[in-house]
Amino acid sequence: MAVNSPLPLASALKPVAGVEIGFAEAGIKKPNRKDVLVLKVAPTATVAGVFTLNRFCAAPVQIAKAHLAAARESGKPIAALLINTGNANAGTGELGLSLANQTCAALAAQLGCEASQILPFSTGVILEPLPSAKVIAGLPQAVAGLKADNWYNAAEAIMTTDTQPKAGSRTVTIGGHTVTMSGISKGAGMIKPNMATMLGYLAFDAKVAQPVLDVLVKQVADKSFNCITIDGDTSTNDSFMLIATGAGTLEVNSVDSPEYAELAAAVTELSLFLAQAIVRDGEGATKFITITVEEGESVEECRKIAYSIGHSPLVKTAFFASDPNLGRILCAIGYAGVDLDVSKLNLYLDDVWVAKNGGRNPDYKEEDGQRVMQQSEITVRVKLARGAAAATVYTCDLSHDYVSINADYRS
Amino acid sequence: MAVNSPLPLASALKPVAGVEIGFAEAGIKKPNRKDVLVLKVAPTATVAGVFTLNRFCAAPVQIAKAHLAAARESGKPIAALLINTGNANAGTGELGLSLANQTCAALAAQLGCEASQILPFSTGVILEPLPSAKVIAGLPQAVAGLKADNWYNAAEAIMTTDTQPKAGSRTVTIGGHTVTMSGISKGAGMIKPNMATMLGYLAFDAKVAQPVLDVLVKQVADKSFNCITIDGDTSTNDSFMLIATGAGTLEVNSVDSPEYAELAAAVTELSLFLAQAIVRDGEGATKFITITVEEGESVEECRKIAYSIGHSPLVKTAFFASDPNLGRILCAIGYAGVDLDVSKLNLYLDDVWVAKNGGRNPDYKEEDGQRVMQQSEITVRVKLARGAAAATVYTCDLSHDYVSINADYRS
Repeated sequence: MAVNSPLPLASALKPVAGVEIGFAEAGIKKPNRKDVLVLKVAPTATVAGVFTLNRFCAAPVQIAKAHLAAARESGKPIAALLINTGNANAGTGELGLSLANQTCAALAAQLGCEASQILPFSTGVILEPLPSAKVIAGLPQAVAGLKADNWYNAAEAIMTTDTQPKAGSRTVTIGGHTVTMSGISKGAGMIKPNMATMLGYLAFDAKVAQPVLDVLVKQVADKSFNCITIDGDTSTNDSFMLIATGAGTLEVNSVDSPEYAELAAAVTELSLFLAQAIVRDGEGATKFITITVEEGESVEECRKIAYSIGHSPLVKTAFFASDPNLGRILCAIGYAGVDLDVSKLNLYLDDVWVAKNGGRNPDYKEEDGQRVMQQSEITVRVKLARGAAAATVYTCDLSHDYVSINADYRS
Repeated sequence: MAVNSPLPLASALKPVAGVEIGFAEAGIKKPNRKDVLVLKVAPTATVAGVFTLNRFCAAPVQIAKAHLAAARESGKPIAALLINTGNANAGTGELGLSLANQTCAALAAQLGCEASQILPFSTGVILEPLPSAKVIAGLPQAVAGLKADNWYNAAEAIMTTDTQPKAGSRTVTIGGHTVTMSGISKGAGMIKPNMATMLGYLAFDAKVAQPVLDVLVKQVADKSFNCITIDGDTSTNDSFMLIATGAGTLEVNSVDSPEYAELAAAVTELSLFLAQAIVRDGEGATKFITITVEEGESVEECRKIAYSIGHSPLVKTAFFASDPNLGRILCAIGYAGVDLDVSKLNLYLDDVWVAKNGGRNPDYKEEDGQRVMQQSEITVRVKLARGAAAATVYTCDLSHDYVSINADYRS
């Protein structure tokens, strides 16, 4: 059960002009489960993405990158995104590339475009061959069902160990133009026995020049999907894609325009919502933790310290136990690899001032720490007293259920 | 219960001439528990150590480093090591330094030396003031009980969440001289709710020049205590100390001598035994995992990859579940931060060839992986095919008991 994260309302998810969505139950791993998703995008659309840095990046990730590059060169736009669950097609070598290409070719044939105009994505078990025939057999169903008002099904179709679909929509007015945006995400653990990957897809109906969208997707990711951690495992398949369909009236041609700033803010807000939804539904999560590191010399050092806290199994089990064992947080700060003068450091748990100038705050009382630790949402705030930079990371606790979920046999 | 690690036999632990050991039940955290240890060393001894790199390093660590440096400058040798459990004296600021100095002064008064000749060590809860009065009150009992044949008690006195004492002795002959060495260690998790720290102490009766011992302790640590990980949390108090008492007949004055090489090999072997004993008794451990990365360009990159595998919660839960979900290992290799060409990489689980040239070995059978995963000792071997360097790291699995132990409230 996700932490403070109600189910999205299907009726609140808005169609985005220029995107049609179809799905299939292709039986890739299990029967009677949506496991193939097609996002068909208008020819006016620009598409940009950020991908996992894992060196074992999956075959579809390699191909999606190549096809994005080819679209830029040829001017032939991306026609559709093809996503399957149940198999990650990672650690699969040359064969994996060939099978992923087959699925792109099959969808291209049905949509009347070239294979290089399809972006493939996979999530699921690593090191096993993609059952490409099953994916391909599911495509006619997905294509026949293409429609605009299908975001809830899209969110369900990319779920793996997620306990609930993750989706959201926003409507904003920018420079007098209405922009509608909808997005979906999936996560759980970075890799679950059968399943891999964080995926996020967000479409909106503004027209955004390709170089501008390329900047936007990186900026947004840095403030959303790159700020979350469940277990520190970066998967082979992580991808976050922005689709600017161009079907609406807003046009953004420069990153220096006021429209860009407003659009970036709105896309970031929805992306952060989708990213946080992944953490709230983290495997076994019972608490949602916000870690903010302030007064640093650089954003990079603040992020390093925030991730060091967020990755520590000892910090995470203390949150699970509602135990204000806050020395563990100091310890994780200390081994973050930042050359700190800890004698100036202050630590807060929500409004409770725990550590003052590197030692226990004389006014800190255990019962105050205890009170905050029992909440389902907790903010850890670290002040480094050495600069003006800050960074925030979102994570969850480490519970018995995390071990249970990940120690389940794959079958 | 530790993995394949029988209790040490008290009768097999050998006195080391030049070391006397006393302990006390000082009630620092709990009554009726050995929690203060004094290792008195002969004036002929040289002492060297390596310490945690955690920036929140504990007050005793800061003082031990300063006293070691002072001994080198003044020529006044280290007289004793003073170790307490039940409180880490970390995250305690100026007060912590003052309290640790008080305990050194109290022991010095009883031994007739200066406070700067005492090396203090603490392990236990972080962020709480050291009950120095209790430590000091225990010293007369510890000093009165000083005797050479006391290593088993020493091993018990430094235990925290360890389920069993860790100790070993060796006798070797080097250049016709008999050298006797004994050592103890403690670990569990890097930090347990109440307890912190990896500690290791090893004494032998050779005479070793200070600069030579300084080199030796680093070389030995790199091949033993620096090759283990349980949960990736580097504590505030980690320390590993070598004591060369000089009471025997072997003298080692140069790192280039054959005697040095033989001594280093023997000390490394016992240190690795003590380090591995910590992993075998890791919190909740049910399996002992050896991770070897070979054919790398540098030892550093091999270590990075080995630690990436050894720290991955997903790899560790798969070992706990005896699930040959080996894509998780590839994934952890991929995000180790090494710029690999994974298409040349091979992965073995004991004798089973799992991944070949970056993809699944066509001859790999799930039942072969399953067979190895059910063992209590497993070797993961990664071949990078890009050089001649190698590194090995030892770790354990991540079980329900790890979460239970670390989610226990501290009281």
